[in-house]
Amino acid sequence: MSENGVSPRAKVLTIDNMNPTVKKVEYAVRGPIVQRALELERELSEGMKKPFVEVIKANIGDAHAMGQQPITFFRQVLALCSYPELLNDSSFPEDAKSRARRILQSCGGNSMGSYSASQGIESVRQDVARYIERRDGGVPCDPDNIFLTTGASDGIVTMLKLLVCGEGETRTGVMISIPQYPLYSAALAELAAVQVNYYLNEEKCWSMDLSELQRSLDEARRHCNPRALCVINPGNPTGQVQSRQCIEDVIRFAAKERLFLMADEVYQDNVYAEGCEFHSFKKVLFNMGPEYSDIVELASFHSTSKCYMGECGFRGGYMEIINLDEEVRAQLTKLVSVRLCPPVPGQALMDLVVNPPQIGEPSYDKFIKERSATLSVLAEKAKLTEQVLNTVKGISCNPVQGAMYSFPSISIPEKAIKEATDKGQQADMFYCMKLLEETGICLVPGSGFGQRDGTYHFRMTILPSTDKLKILLNKVKEFHQKFTEEYS
Amino acid sequence: MSENGVSPRAKVLTIDNMNPTVKKVEYAVRGPIVQRALELERELSEGMKKPFVEVIKANIGDAHAMGQQPITFFRQVLALCSYPELLNDSSFPEDAKSRARRILQSCGGNSMGSYSASQGIESVRQDVARYIERRDGGVPCDPDNIFLTTGASDGIVTMLKLLVCGEGETRTGVMISIPQYPLYSAALAELAAVQVNYYLNEEKCWSMDLSELQRSLDEARRHCNPRALCVINPGNPTGQVQSRQCIEDVIRFAAKERLFLMADEVYQDNVYAEGCEFHSFKKVLFNMGPEYSDIVELASFHSTSKCYMGECGFRGGYMEIINLDEEVRAQLTKLVSVRLCPPVPGQALMDLVVNPPQIGEPSYDKFIKERSATLSVLAEKAKLTEQVLNTVKGISCNPVQGAMYSFPSISIPEKAIKEATDKGQQADMFYCMKLLEETGICLVPGSGFGQRDGTYHFRMTILPSTDKLKILLNKVKEFHQKFTEEYS
Repeated sequence: MSENGVSPRAKVLTIDNMNPTVKKVEYAVRGPIVQRALELERELSEGMKKPFVEVIKANIGDAHAMGQQPITFFRQVLALCSYPELLNDSSFPEDAKSRARRILQSCGGNSMGSYSASQGIESVRQDVARYIERRDGGVPCDPDNIFLTTGASDGIVTMLKLLVCGEGETRTGVMISIPQYPLYSAALAELAAVQVNYYLNEEKCWSMDLSELQRSLDEARRHCNPRALCVINPGNPTGQVQSRQCIEDVIRFAAKERLFLMADEVYQDNVYAEGCEFHSFKKVLFNMGPEYSDIVELASFHSTSKCYMGECGFRGGYMEIINLDEEVRAQLTKLVSVRLCPPVPGQALMDLVVNPPQIGEPSYDKFIKERSATLSVLAEKAKLTEQVLNTVKGISCNPVQGAMYSFPSISIPEKAIKEATDKGQQADMFYCMKLLEETGICLVPGSGFGQRDGTYHFRMTILPSTDKLKILLNKVKEFHQKFTEEYS
Repeated sequence: MSENGVSPRAKVLTIDNMNPTVKKVEYAVRGPIVQRALELERELSEGMKKPFVEVIKANIGDAHAMGQQPITFFRQVLALCSYPELLNDSSFPEDAKSRARRILQSCGGNSMGSYSASQGIESVRQDVARYIERRDGGVPCDPDNIFLTTGASDGIVTMLKLLVCGEGETRTGVMISIPQYPLYSAALAELAAVQVNYYLNEEKCWSMDLSELQRSLDEARRHCNPRALCVINPGNPTGQVQSRQCIEDVIRFAAKERLFLMADEVYQDNVYAEGCEFHSFKKVLFNMGPEYSDIVELASFHSTSKCYMGECGFRGGYMEIINLDEEVRAQLTKLVSVRLCPPVPGQALMDLVVNPPQIGEPSYDKFIKERSATLSVLAEKAKLTEQVLNTVKGISCNPVQGAMYSFPSISIPEKAIKEATDKGQQADMFYCMKLLEETGICLVPGSGFGQRDGTYHFRMTILPSTDKLKILLNKVKEFHQKFTEEYS
């Protein structure tokens, strides 16, 4: 009843009659803790007193927002493509101009304002294919197997969408790592697919265990039809980099168990730890010979958003599909055509990532300098994060071998767990919320990514500037000590 | 069995076990006829002999690809935002620089490479709200009701996704016009919602008939739960512009029948016919008073892709939601957060569209000149198309009052219909395919948009340059005469 006593008319669309699968979607990286961080920032800007002077956000891999600078060459080409009059400006380097001309020639009417082919601009797909061949030591790549996407998320959701069918015990199950990047759980919830969890081995630096994959699969087969296995390498949120041996084992497992492989490789340039190297699933698959490379169905994903580029806002990405059934490929082509095309500036940026300045070109030295600087700072911060967190009693942090995140386990006293439970909160959400209120530091609770029952974690990015990262780590340290005392 | 007699292993993902809803999706605008047009282009470029020297594509509203020039101011600001070093370049006008500064200040780290808020950049949403208020004669608009999107398609699919629930006879039905823009049928197929057709009145210039809406709704209620009514105004593919009276009637109908209204208004600046004017559903709704404006749930959509901008490749757009239930809004906010954010260059472009140069600013005169030139050429071509087509016996074309398309009805001789049927083709697909092979002109058959049984149409855009459009129209004329003779 409203104030005047008249019963207000019910809405057509209400929480009770809306799409139930949408209601099941969760996405912790932009969840309640981030909402509260934004509120706190506003309160600070309005002059409200807080026990801190700024909110430091380490919740999301948003590099430029944390001060990482874009690659000059990339932005020069994008400016040239946006406003081709600049092609007459002598202050732009010639290699930037030639890249811009090539991109514009591939656009209808020589304009980034045209729709591209739904699969992506042909010349960009060719450049992606050449990049993959170089990266993978010469394993061939067919541009027809490349689909440009709106960030990697778009490609992942599209492939999952193709895979989902059946009802009840025949419903498609999709195996995802725990901890996982919550895009996967969100997409599976929306598609009403069955999320099949396999746990990464925290004791062994978050590696994949074959026996755990088998356990997970066998259990899942009792109640659904597991058809796909998703792997994130380098790992998000775990920061692990998989060994070549591990990838071979996973491929053998997928072949044996007849699983469609999905390899999320958006952090392929983010490898810091000594002795670690990025191996693409595609390369390892083809090095295993036709016995595997002729049969295993694989989709792998890359993006402009991470690595040394960090260009999240452009929503560029690609996927490569291997051994996809031809009729399914036709369905995929049709499906992507409904949304017309990925954003063309993101496609242009993807092209630059796979076809950066070459030795001898005027922009080469600057490009290498900028890229190396960004990656070496990230490597330092990866090390710093691990080191400082491991000095804290009750926090245990695996090496950040790659990607942009640390996912330490935290011990939370029983009393705190009880208080959280009373509030209807996960204990690590309670912890992170308190951390935010007391220190202004915004992390994401481990429960948003999944973790073994009874363990608690948080994910933090290593993206704040070194100075801010030091402040952040010290505040976390102090907070954890205080929190542990308070609840002991 | 493969060549060597070994049975090849079946794929994990096949046409028989893939997502059945994806298989039901169709999208004529990029369907087989367009595939064939691309092949013909390649064959021509390889020197193959054809009865024509070029393929003229009038299948898709892709303005820049057809030679329409981008607005200089928009592209200057995008270049400045892409490469902010240019802010020191004295050749850029001051108003472009100040717009770029404002956009960059709203981006994390002052970079378009940062993720924005999932709902879109706040300052852009504010500018959209002010634009809507000006457009709608002062009807207030709350920036919190604005969601920026990846083109209008993204917003439309997102809203449809929220609306779908139930099974069997309680499954959500969505009313769409026939002919329709096939994004709607494609999205409904994918969501496994029930497509509820209402026919536009071709005899009355493709207007909406209340009695037809009622018939369609009443019939649908026997087998599903119709919950939403979609309207495209100005019309795609029909080119009609709805009268204020018609919009009022539709709103009353939606209120009476408890339907969620979706207004696709991406052609709002594309109005050419004398006596026609664009009225937004939002404005009309609020002018009808609180009896309606307090209750009718409305989502309306706009985009950077059409009108005088034609910037399809940037995938910019917004939706405004009115009277959405608060809990549903929270679900919407969560849902869009999973995909992180719409492309930031598209958001920047959307901002420029709603906040173009103002009187007294250095770029104003040029902007107005460019905009007027584009719109007046479109108006000429709309008229030309109608006039020429109506000189052809067996083609009947309503006035192209707005949007970018003509959707004439064509009479197809019985013999041709039979030949098409024998080939398993729709008669208008047969017609368009033959037109393409003989003349190089690429149109889309009416069957891709829906039409009354026994009638045939094609959709053609009015976007080719005036010279090419004349060639195109004359070739269609000749072809139709020849085709009619051949099959009579």
